[in-house]
Amino acid sequence: MVDILRATTTMITALENGIKSIVPVESVRECHELREKGFLGAAERDGKIADGFELGNSPFDYMNPSYSGKKVALTTTNGTKTIFSIQGADKIIFAAFVNVTSTADFLEHLARDVVIVCAGWKEEVNLEDTVCAGALIDKLAPSFSVEGDPAIIAHKLFVASEGHLDMLLNSASHVRRLKNLDLQKDIDFCLKMDTYRIIPEMRDGEIVPRILDQ
Amino acid sequence: MVDILRATTTMITALENGIKSIVPVESVRECHELREKGFLGAAERDGKIADGFELGNSPFDYMNPSYSGKKVALTTTNGTKTIFSIQGADKIIFAAFVNVTSTADFLEHLARDVVIVCAGWKEEVNLEDTVCAGALIDKLAPSFSVEGDPAIIAHKLFVASEGHLDMLLNSASHVRRLKNLDLQKDIDFCLKMDTYRIIPEMRDGEIVPRILDQ
Repeated sequence: MVDILRATTTMITALENGIKSIVPVESVRECHELREKGFLGAAERDGKIADGFELGNSPFDYMNPSYSGKKVALTTTNGTKTIFSIQGADKIIFAAFVNVTSTADFLEHLARDVVIVCAGWKEEVNLEDTVCAGALIDKLAPSFSVEGDPAIIAHKLFVASEGHLDMLLNSASHVRRLKNLDLQKDIDFCLKMDTYRIIPEMRDGEIVPRILDQ
Repeated sequence: MVDILRATTTMITALENGIKSIVPVESVRECHELREKGFLGAAERDGKIADGFELGNSPFDYMNPSYSGKKVALTTTNGTKTIFSIQGADKIIFAAFVNVTSTADFLEHLARDVVIVCAGWKEEVNLEDTVCAGALIDKLAPSFSVEGDPAIIAHKLFVASEGHLDMLLNSASHVRRLKNLDLQKDIDFCLKMDTYRIIPEMRDGEIVPRILDQ
């Protein structure tokens, strides 16, 4: 699953910074309930931290050594909905630009059919997740066959944008939405490739770091 | 509306070849009923002419001088469904590669907001309609503002494919589907730009040639 602005980027960053696991929940109410049980509470609605929570959907929220070893309950406007919609999959991993190469390496090693699910925005296609899917497809293309017109479009879009990805993504509607919330620092972070090697994986309802070479 | 393989290309070709009007219907049964009232019957299901009809969804079916002045009742697997889904629009016109420049000229002259509806394939995005939408956006971009990530993606895809559009479109899933039905001649025809100037327009449930400069 891909939701680069900002759910999957933030998950990757959180686990990289020592968070033990992330439990995605659908509602702010459920997030509150887990918070009362000792979880850190992360609730984002329309780009902002919901009232009464310490964490939102910004990767920078999680770069705090005092959170190391803790569990997070997370709900976001868009990303967590997508997670619940794909629960039937054999294996669910989370990708973004920040871990795209390690994700591709893992999928190549896994040698299974791959469906890239873009969270998009409120049931609509968005530019940034499509381009990130295209980047992943570009890395996988030599050893996989690419099936379906949406995958061909995503791949072509990425190849056509290499070298000026920033310029293209700055025209994305969600980037403009976040800029209005003064989140340029988040956007720059989310668009950078291969900052990390970690791959979050869904296991028994919790998002945990995939153990390497397993 | 864009459905280049082959509904909108075929409509444009039919009107250019003297067909008086096309009445889109949802079912093969309705198509039969209008045929009994003197219409030519055009019914396509999964790429083939349905049993008992003279016409299908190939533009070449309509290049017959004896059909001149006649009305056609048309149902297709995919395209006619899309027409019924957009009935609330102020004005509906039909575009394809074969009339893309004249469509752009008309829209520029009209100076109204434009929504490009791609028929796609069975509720999914497809490559050929997306690229055709991108070609139209490319012509409109100097005088319109382009809103929404799908429009940005379509535009970028077209610009990136100029000069090797055939190569890209040959990878489209529907092109491969039609090739299996031996429709290479149809595909070549549908991918050619600006063969015609005519613009089909919906008026009182019938698709008729737009009267120029009106």
